[in-house]
Amino acid sequence: MRHSQEVARDDVAQAAAALLDRLRARSPRVHCITNAVAQNFTANALLAVACVPSMTLSPEEIAPFVARSHALLVNLGTFDRERREATEIAVATASQHNVPWVLDPVFVDRAPPRAAFARDLVARAPKVVRLNHAEFFALAGAKPTREALVAYARDKKITIGLSGETDLVTDGERVATIANGHPLMAKVTAMGCAASALIAACLGVEQDAWRATAAALVMIGVAGELAATQAEGPGSFAVAIIDALHNLDGPTLIAHARVN
Amino acid sequence: MRHSQEVARDDVAQAAAALLDRLRARSPRVHCITNAVAQNFTANALLAVACVPSMTLSPEEIAPFVARSHALLVNLGTFDRERREATEIAVATASQHNVPWVLDPVFVDRAPPRAAFARDLVARAPKVVRLNHAEFFALAGAKPTREALVAYARDKKITIGLSGETDLVTDGERVATIANGHPLMAKVTAMGCAASALIAACLGVEQDAWRATAAALVMIGVAGELAATQAEGPGSFAVAIIDALHNLDGPTLIAHARVN
Amino acid sequence: MRHSQEVARDDVAQAAAALLDRLRARSPRVHCITNAVAQNFTANALLAVACVPSMTLSPEEIAPFVARSHALLVNLGTFDRERREATEIAVATASQHNVPWVLDPVFVDRAPPRAAFARDLVARAPKVVRLNHAEFFALAGAKPTREALVAYARDKKITIGLSGETDLVTDGERVATIANGHPLMAKVTAMGCAASALIAACLGVEQDAWRATAAALVMIGVAGELAATQAEGPGSFAVAIIDALHNLDGPTLIAHARVN
Repeated sequence: MRHSQEVARDDVAQAAAALLDRLRARSPRVHCITNAVAQNFTANALLAVACVPSMTLSPEEIAPFVARSHALLVNLGTFDRERREATEIAVATASQHNVPWVLDPVFVDRAPPRAAFARDLVARAPKVVRLNHAEFFALAGAKPTREALVAYARDKKITIGLSGETDLVTDGERVATIANGHPLMAKVTAMGCAASALIAACLGVEQDAWRATAAALVMIGVAGELAATQAEGPGSFAVAIIDALHNLDGPTLIAHARVN
Repeated sequence: MRHSQEVARDDVAQAAAALLDRLRARSPRVHCITNAVAQNFTANALLAVACVPSMTLSPEEIAPFVARSHALLVNLGTFDRERREATEIAVATASQHNVPWVLDPVFVDRAPPRAAFARDLVARAPKVVRLNHAEFFALAGAKPTREALVAYARDKKITIGLSGETDLVTDGERVATIANGHPLMAKVTAMGCAASALIAACLGVEQDAWRATAAALVMIGVAGELAATQAEGPGSFAVAIIDALHNLDGPTLIAHARVN
Repeated sequence: MRHSQEVARDDVAQAAAALLDRLRARSPRVHCITNAVAQNFTANALLAVACVPSMTLSPEEIAPFVARSHALLVNLGTFDRERREATEIAVATASQHNVPWVLDPVFVDRAPPRAAFARDLVARAPKVVRLNHAEFFALAGAKPTREALVAYARDKKITIGLSGETDLVTDGERVATIANGHPLMAKVTAMGCAASALIAACLGVEQDAWRATAAALVMIGVAGELAATQAEGPGSFAVAIIDALHNLDGPTLIAHARVN
């Protein structure tokens, strides 16, 4: 048990270091359908790890943007007709061009139509769904126990990235828990959206969705810990985490990763 | 005269301290219809005082979001069809579920259709209207003298929060003037929008709209003064005021409040 | 040759200093049709040099906003129906009221419909088009050599502001190259959009579009260099450049301008 945990830890930490290098070497294009609250912070988080974000929602042009991207993020925050239409086109284009995509079903626990739409999307083969406890409960109708998460991931053939005090990543077979992060992350809007965008970025350079998801959550968790040492509150923390993502390197990730 | 002023000062300063504690204890949900320029900063200002912001505009889901919120903000900046439609639904829902709401008639002095819409909204029983001098003139057709403000508030049965070098808060009976704040607050976009969001937050934990409005303006004014001591310009000021809101406490509010 | 370069350098540096003073003295109103990612940062950049930004897209009210503005920015990022409709009205209003406008054809290299729309707009007499190398290639169908840029500007009767490691500004007759700036500027979203907004601001106080464009690019380039000395990454850089714009003065611009 001890031994297999250490393997998981090393595997995920090494993956995080390797994928960070790959992001910087390849600068993947990541198209984001995301809420207006999160667009600026998400774009800056992606730029900080050398990615090229784009954010258009126009039905006339989202297909070429997605087709030429290395990954797609579909975030349901501030969910409106325009984003729903954009999502339909983007997901169809991603499927046609084998562009991996991440679903972030923000606030599905707050409005039933959003939860219904999210369930439809889960059936359309996202590689990853990243969400918090309340969102999983609303989406899956079950408490987010380890068993329920593994069963849901296996049943839907997706990777689940559950955010919380400890993050959990499972593809229905493998499970990693990640203890990195800092309480100030919950005090800055769009932090979860940025985490989902980083998962999309990692999917742009890594086919194994479980590794990509765990690596991305280690990156943002470690960046959050480093940022907290510089911050005097959530305002300066939001600035410092962008700096920290930009300044991250593999050895720092490996030294700070807390994975089981 | 001296005596009654001191009562007002102490009453408002104590209210600010008490409401700050109540925000942190209850974490009210505040739904915001606000302009795209302001969404991120407004969300972070609300998070800094432990509130839960939401921002969706979708006509299908704004009703359940508002019905489950403790307060609603209607901000008319970047005013478009989507936000107008969202506002109609949100205000009707707020009325039905007794959710208190704040109107921020941004830039009604710049476009006649916006002023007409704002006048309609004033008739639909917001608890508070927060605006600046030019906006009051466009809305009410009168200069914002103390007498005109008191008369307007009494006539419309609302609380007015007038922003300026000195803020004035009146419900048509009571008047408080608040001298807190800093000139850099006028150099950061969405600062007024964030002030209105804090008023909404306070309305979520305090039924007396005059007290809630004066308390919120003291909070953001004191936070601005503290932030200015850390800032080297409007960029770092915008960051520092979020930190300051997060780090505020009752004794600091009481020590710094400049209310008459 | 040496001599004429020095004249150009002094002319542009002096123009930058003079226009910065004029911005602060006149506080021009700048209406911005820009992408949601860029709205907040653009508004804060304009406020930092004493301008009054507005951002509404509503077809009912954009005409009065533009008619009462001193300059207009049309940025095609996150290009959607709403912004296309707003652009049609805004450009017609600008033409009718002699409001100078700037076109920023963001990402025209990524989607054909956007490039076609941008070409139509170039024919509708913007004073300035600001873009990067890939965008010029998509728009003009030619590599952005000095000769191609001069020919395009002369042919279209516009000023071109090409961003890159060295910026180039030409109206088809005069050419200035500006070496100011810092690599971190490419790591912050909306930096180019903010540059275009500053060009619009300068057009609001200077009829000579070539001078206005070169001056604006010197301002943001010098601000970027000053910000980089304070920054620990792109997060703190984005904050510091707003502070730097706010704290800029003429002598600093003249001392730091690197123009040929």
